[in-house]
Amino acid sequence: MNEDARLDLGRRQRLGMVEAVWGEHKSAEQITAVMLGLHQAGELALVTRVSAEKALAVERLLADQLGSGGADPPPQHHPLARCLTWPAPPPADPAFGRVAVVSGGSSDLAVASEARLALACHGVASDLVLDVGVAGLHRLLAELEGLRRARVLIACAGMEGALPTVLAGLLPQPVIGVPVAVGYGVSAGGQAALMGMLASCAPGLTVVNIDNGYGAAMAALRILQLANGVASAAGEQGP
Amino acid sequence: MNEDARLDLGRRQRLGMVEAVWGEHKSAEQITAVMLGLHQAGELALVTRVSAEKALAVERLLADQLGSGGADPPPQHHPLARCLTWPAPPPADPAFGRVAVVSGGSSDLAVASEARLALACHGVASDLVLDVGVAGLHRLLAELEGLRRARVLIACAGMEGALPTVLAGLLPQPVIGVPVAVGYGVSAGGQAALMGMLASCAPGLTVVNIDNGYGAAMAALRILQLANGVASAAGEQGP
Amino acid sequence: MNEDARLDLGRRQRLGMVEAVWGEHKSAEQITAVMLGLHQAGELALVTRVSAEKALAVERLLADQLGSGGADPPPQHHPLARCLTWPAPPPADPAFGRVAVVSGGSSDLAVASEARLALACHGVASDLVLDVGVAGLHRLLAELEGLRRARVLIACAGMEGALPTVLAGLLPQPVIGVPVAVGYGVSAGGQAALMGMLASCAPGLTVVNIDNGYGAAMAALRILQLANGVASAAGEQGP
Amino acid sequence: MNEDARLDLGRRQRLGMVEAVWGEHKSAEQITAVMLGLHQAGELALVTRVSAEKALAVERLLADQLGSGGADPPPQHHPLARCLTWPAPPPADPAFGRVAVVSGGSSDLAVASEARLALACHGVASDLVLDVGVAGLHRLLAELEGLRRARVLIACAGMEGALPTVLAGLLPQPVIGVPVAVGYGVSAGGQAALMGMLASCAPGLTVVNIDNGYGAAMAALRILQLANGVASAAGEQGP
Amino acid sequence: MNEDARLDLGRRQRLGMVEAVWGEHKSAEQITAVMLGLHQAGELALVTRVSAEKALAVERLLADQLGSGGADPPPQHHPLARCLTWPAPPPADPAFGRVAVVSGGSSDLAVASEARLALACHGVASDLVLDVGVAGLHRLLAELEGLRRARVLIACAGMEGALPTVLAGLLPQPVIGVPVAVGYGVSAGGQAALMGMLASCAPGLTVVNIDNGYGAAMAALRILQLANGVASAAGEQGP
Amino acid sequence: MNEDARLDLGRRQRLGMVEAVWGEHKSAEQITAVMLGLHQAGELALVTRVSAEKALAVERLLADQLGSGGADPPPQHHPLARCLTWPAPPPADPAFGRVAVVSGGSSDLAVASEARLALACHGVASDLVLDVGVAGLHRLLAELEGLRRARVLIACAGMEGALPTVLAGLLPQPVIGVPVAVGYGVSAGGQAALMGMLASCAPGLTVVNIDNGYGAAMAALRILQLANGVASAAGEQGP
Amino acid sequence: MNEDARLDLGRRQRLGMVEAVWGEHKSAEQITAVMLGLHQAGELALVTRVSAEKALAVERLLADQLGSGGADPPPQHHPLARCLTWPAPPPADPAFGRVAVVSGGSSDLAVASEARLALACHGVASDLVLDVGVAGLHRLLAELEGLRRARVLIACAGMEGALPTVLAGLLPQPVIGVPVAVGYGVSAGGQAALMGMLASCAPGLTVVNIDNGYGAAMAALRILQLANGVASAAGEQGP
Amino acid sequence: MNEDARLDLGRRQRLGMVEAVWGEHKSAEQITAVMLGLHQAGELALVTRVSAEKALAVERLLADQLGSGGADPPPQHHPLARCLTWPAPPPADPAFGRVAVVSGGSSDLAVASEARLALACHGVASDLVLDVGVAGLHRLLAELEGLRRARVLIACAGMEGALPTVLAGLLPQPVIGVPVAVGYGVSAGGQAALMGMLASCAPGLTVVNIDNGYGAAMAALRILQLANGVASAAGEQGP
Repeated sequence: MNEDARLDLGRRQRLGMVEAVWGEHKSAEQITAVMLGLHQAGELALVTRVSAEKALAVERLLADQLGSGGADPPPQHHPLARCLTWPAPPPADPAFGRVAVVSGGSSDLAVASEARLALACHGVASDLVLDVGVAGLHRLLAELEGLRRARVLIACAGMEGALPTVLAGLLPQPVIGVPVAVGYGVSAGGQAALMGMLASCAPGLTVVNIDNGYGAAMAALRILQLANGVASAAGEQGP
Repeated sequence: MNEDARLDLGRRQRLGMVEAVWGEHKSAEQITAVMLGLHQAGELALVTRVSAEKALAVERLLADQLGSGGADPPPQHHPLARCLTWPAPPPADPAFGRVAVVSGGSSDLAVASEARLALACHGVASDLVLDVGVAGLHRLLAELEGLRRARVLIACAGMEGALPTVLAGLLPQPVIGVPVAVGYGVSAGGQAALMGMLASCAPGLTVVNIDNGYGAAMAALRILQLANGVASAAGEQGP
Repeated sequence: MNEDARLDLGRRQRLGMVEAVWGEHKSAEQITAVMLGLHQAGELALVTRVSAEKALAVERLLADQLGSGGADPPPQHHPLARCLTWPAPPPADPAFGRVAVVSGGSSDLAVASEARLALACHGVASDLVLDVGVAGLHRLLAELEGLRRARVLIACAGMEGALPTVLAGLLPQPVIGVPVAVGYGVSAGGQAALMGMLASCAPGLTVVNIDNGYGAAMAALRILQLANGVASAAGEQGP
Repeated sequence: MNEDARLDLGRRQRLGMVEAVWGEHKSAEQITAVMLGLHQAGELALVTRVSAEKALAVERLLADQLGSGGADPPPQHHPLARCLTWPAPPPADPAFGRVAVVSGGSSDLAVASEARLALACHGVASDLVLDVGVAGLHRLLAELEGLRRARVLIACAGMEGALPTVLAGLLPQPVIGVPVAVGYGVSAGGQAALMGMLASCAPGLTVVNIDNGYGAAMAALRILQLANGVASAAGEQGP
Repeated sequence: MNEDARLDLGRRQRLGMVEAVWGEHKSAEQITAVMLGLHQAGELALVTRVSAEKALAVERLLADQLGSGGADPPPQHHPLARCLTWPAPPPADPAFGRVAVVSGGSSDLAVASEARLALACHGVASDLVLDVGVAGLHRLLAELEGLRRARVLIACAGMEGALPTVLAGLLPQPVIGVPVAVGYGVSAGGQAALMGMLASCAPGLTVVNIDNGYGAAMAALRILQLANGVASAAGEQGP
Repeated sequence: MNEDARLDLGRRQRLGMVEAVWGEHKSAEQITAVMLGLHQAGELALVTRVSAEKALAVERLLADQLGSGGADPPPQHHPLARCLTWPAPPPADPAFGRVAVVSGGSSDLAVASEARLALACHGVASDLVLDVGVAGLHRLLAELEGLRRARVLIACAGMEGALPTVLAGLLPQPVIGVPVAVGYGVSAGGQAALMGMLASCAPGLTVVNIDNGYGAAMAALRILQLANGVASAAGEQGP
Repeated sequence: MNEDARLDLGRRQRLGMVEAVWGEHKSAEQITAVMLGLHQAGELALVTRVSAEKALAVERLLADQLGSGGADPPPQHHPLARCLTWPAPPPADPAFGRVAVVSGGSSDLAVASEARLALACHGVASDLVLDVGVAGLHRLLAELEGLRRARVLIACAGMEGALPTVLAGLLPQPVIGVPVAVGYGVSAGGQAALMGMLASCAPGLTVVNIDNGYGAAMAALRILQLANGVASAAGEQGP
Repeated sequence: MNEDARLDLGRRQRLGMVEAVWGEHKSAEQITAVMLGLHQAGELALVTRVSAEKALAVERLLADQLGSGGADPPPQHHPLARCLTWPAPPPADPAFGRVAVVSGGSSDLAVASEARLALACHGVASDLVLDVGVAGLHRLLAELEGLRRARVLIACAGMEGALPTVLAGLLPQPVIGVPVAVGYGVSAGGQAALMGMLASCAPGLTVVNIDNGYGAAMAALRILQLANGVASAAGEQGP
């Protein structure tokens, strides 16, 4: 039997997605090995939950292993999104249209940024609409026309998490709610926001795990691939 | 020591409130005894959580005990609010102004009705504004001018419980949120609504226990007594 | 202020959806009134969580109110889905393609049927794929080619809820997980399935509330409207 | 669409409140930017959950941006309340009367101080009554006459959180309970205190989120504005 | 191996207690068999959680098995305490002094009665002090002198469960708190009362399971046996 | 009104206990002030949850305030029990007999030591019986004769918390269970041990909050005072 | 795609097990159809969680479908185990040795019986050892020699669930804990027992879901097949 | 009574296991004392949850106590498994065959390594199969033939924890699930994985506490001892 870590290199063919690596519980050494493996397979590497310190350590380890000149281009750390990418994400594919990533407060910025970066890694452009929490409804209503043009809405919210409910009651597009682990007392850890989104009275709102910006992006990608006729093509090739 | 049930007859003097009786876990015999005790003390009886069957049994027991003619007037059962009152609530005191009892859906009607009846028992008039849940925001916005005239807002909501948050972001009055135990899955039992109201990003929203329409009414009464200068008067007489 | 129940008749224009009525906590009288209101507005009525007994009572009340001949056609009760519809759902619109409603065990049938009926009310055809739980993986693998042709997958599962995870790892389409409240011990009430779906390691799986077949259908409808270019059209008309 | 953070500058007009900024998850840079924005709009800045270190960093950043002389007056950090204010709060408005902030133990001091500072930022004077927990009831009874003169009571308590219940049973004023996250075992995180306050048998006690001293203050402000006839005035100007 | 149910007949020698039988999940047949077994061993039978219907069935089964005349004396059903005893409890032993069973509201009567009956089965007299909840503190203070004479206090409370905390802050005796499963919302099932008692700031309050009146009585018995020098005697005889 | 911290100096007269100070959330300055206050009142100071660092800081502050020679004798820090005492606890009073503090594993030592020190502060001697967890039952059975001589048993246990259940099934004395916050997974934070002790099938076991060694000691003290006839004496003097 | 329910008829070949049917949420019609399907495939049918009423309905439906003479032999309902089997289980295979099913109290009998019946359906003999809860340890110790001869131990316990821990500390065989949903307060629903077993300090105890007697039996079967060399044989034939 | 820590030296005779020491809450001094005690008794020491820093401190303390040359051989720290062993584990006993330790992702490596080391300490060889999570099912299917040769399967998984369910549906051997505390949001702390494994629809899967690699190994050892006829031999010697 094989004790080595193994990559899911068929994911792009099977699902039309790169394999993102969850970096939180991995050492810099483990991350470096995975990134080299993806690189050798010609895949873009997207590593989430990477601190600036760990990113620096990875960069050094990569340079050690790749010798003179190091990685060219070097991996890029995105501090807001807390992610590493290598090489640079592809240019946006206009066929996807635009996704709106909407956020209740600037404390949700890390999660919103992870979602936008994950979209960018698949060629999907997005717009960020910040600080439109439901306690000041006029700010949200003022953005409504712009939001109407997005193909998919990703709504990030902590505290009571009512933003996706209000959006899904006003707009007909797919709305993906991302509960965010900001808050204190009953909202600590994002539980209140998660429950609020699941319990929503707005029809057709769907939800991903707390802080899972990456997951929301992949759900949006599945939708856009379907809308563009890509999903069936990818699907035809199967596992 | 005294093994009898005893009434808190000083509550009106101390707090300006009648002593409501929580009827859920009490037998018709226990309720009848308490109602007679309050009657003899010249107090209005308000018994909450009483089914139509139990109310009928109480009415018969009262008739048995009071002899020919029975209770005059008879106790009144309010089926929507699931409460018994005896004798009739006093006329509304215009000095209190009006309270708005706002509700997300008609499934919240029992709780909203309990709140309105408890207000009426203290001479406070109220208006009911139904079906203004946040998934159809235009219905709420259409009522905004009317709501602006209420002195206190009691907002009842089940599911994700976002209604009080939206109200408290739009209007400056005291807003009291009442989570309602309607819903299924994560909103069963009112937990999601309770957490959503407590976690609310709207400043100055306060909350009572799930389904506690009576408690919300008493909180509104405390506020109105203060605003009318009644509270200090009552308070002066002390325990 | 207006104390009457009010319908969200703009929902079709705003979101492209009929307003479904959650029947669980409503009396036959309340349901009848809502159905007549929708009928007069020319809307299809879809009432969820209605027992056979309550459906019969509604039918009688409708007949009473509509006079000779009663409702024509009469409302239809769907016992598996526990829903009432009136009049019949429209014929399926082939432009939507087909949705696959996949279920781990026949205990999930009520939820799967609610999802399929809600799709049908919007002209969306669906296929039911039963008994493909992950404890007998070969049954799922045998259906894979058929599932590949669906445009959206709705996966209903109780117990540990692993079915949507396995599906979303194999297929590129949008996958919506519906936790189902079957099971006992830690899976009672659907909590284990809900947590399992949210915690899923499959990229881009989204989730709705426990037993919310209707919500999953509406999420699928949002996706199909986008894919068909309907969403933007509906969206253009705004709230 | 607009990716910048935006302030809710209409909050004072709409609700009669300054916009408090929740500083916990924000960087010194983010806080500085918000404070400058409020300053330019002529608003008082109140930033909660700011450590002494972060406050110092903000002060330096402000000095850098404002040039010679820095902020004049400089922002003030309140170590007990863990808040920043800029410029100084206004003088107390005697029309508001006084609020009593009551606390079960000196471990609740941070939350009580946040409530008092938030009141002060709106011109409301308050008194602090410390160490009157229910395990030594005589200490509370000794303060009762003084408490009777307060217009609103804010009661902070950790552990079992019984203090607001006892107060609301003795006094007729509005009582706002603030559960405090001190304690260990079942009271860790403030859950036992929160549940105890919500479950209270005292009529008309309302509750805010754990540690939400600011929220309790804003609830008191809504009440005082109503009592003073300010609320309706503010409300007239609308959103 | 032995498949029969077996009684713990050594419990009286080991612990000085009769073996109480928890009747809730047992059939009338199972209860009858256990009662006969205890009877033949010369032990008093105390069966808790027995409805009136089940008690009647047990009485009939006993009569069938014991033949002419049936059980003499017959088993006695205590409807408030929901218990069966057979034969009658012994007379009270004055050496134990008296236990006070204190209760917040008459909804706690079933649990208080179970505690008193379990004490009586061991020859311990008790007094019931009803309706002394903390929301009307004067009623409790009025009973204080009487309570001071009890040797042990058993305090039953639902809702927020603050009664034992207040008692244990005022009186030096052992205080045993019994959370009671009355209430709704967060206090449903007795969880809030349980947490409140465990989190209590009163020193030396101990707690038993929700609704466990029997357990509180046995804890009081252990204390009284120690105080009377019985415990060591019983203990000497060992298991 | 009085904003100073105030001590409950009547506690010894009322309850026969010194007022212990919970040091966890208090600064060295706050602790020093309280200790000086108790000292001036002639009371022993017992401060729980004090780290070695904070204890050192308190000692320095005391020396600063008391001038030449500092505190004489100096306060003593007990590292295992994480407590400060000042002055030394009194000699043990043989009339109390001995308490056995029993512990499942050496990870429970801190809690067991807090209980023993709190007893010692009231003149009660205790014995520590370590490492007698139920997974190696022979170790417990070997100590049974010694345990039989204790007047009260305090049983500390983490993990599944079965030790007090087994003890209370074997021995007739009062048994007080203390759940301990050691363990991982489901036993993290002591929740499994707490639930196990509350759910115990052993009659008359009582429980205190997780890690509350002090509370268990005070419960034992209440029992010993009663057994020694001290409680009634103390009680006579009242609040 | 195939909308019919489908059986996992390969389970015997793959796992050496019959496919048990969970009857709780299935109608008599659904159960009948599954039983006929298994019958036609030559498989034994084991349906769990079937009430006596539903069993009778199934028997009638089978008779209707099978015509004259009905099922021969008829299906058998096991009232204690709440299961249906058809045809009779095979005779016990002595090569498996014996499993001991141990139970803390007679309230656990339903779960213990389900485990024993599921074992019998696979030819495994078992012994039932009742009423050996840890509160009366001597009863358990008296059975120890008999238990030593069992090959696998299945320990069912409600309340605090300590029985499997004590067993696994005394005996070297595989021990499988089954939490049972009897109890009240914190042990209601079996949660305390489940947590106690998972948190156990006894090495190598494993656990199944609450009330899952069938699952414990299948875990024992896997072990016995391995011990008898059957597992590898079955495994060789693969899925 | 004996206040010293005492070892369970009879565990090997009673259960065929060494006594593992849980190092998390123990100081280096406590660990050193236990290791010396085991060493003097001729037992292998296995200490779990030991950081590299603490291991170094233990090594130094051992050297101090053992004098010139220190421990020979020195204790060995296993960084992945976070364990100390002393002396080296014995060689693998081929009679046990091999255990497969299967893991969903490389974040589960610490727990899988603890399980493997605990097996090695008892002479059981194991194979590690990494990165076979259910989101990429083909990787698991590719390993199936190898897994078929293992005698027992230990399946470690975080996130939704579906891996053991899929394995137990495909293979007939005993399968022990170990939930792993990796993940975020609902899967933080391993709760979702634990619930998923307990709720599993795969027959005969058993579960241990979150992160309890040691416990899973001991469960496997119990099974292998039974299969090899060792258990009964050990069992015969009794406690």
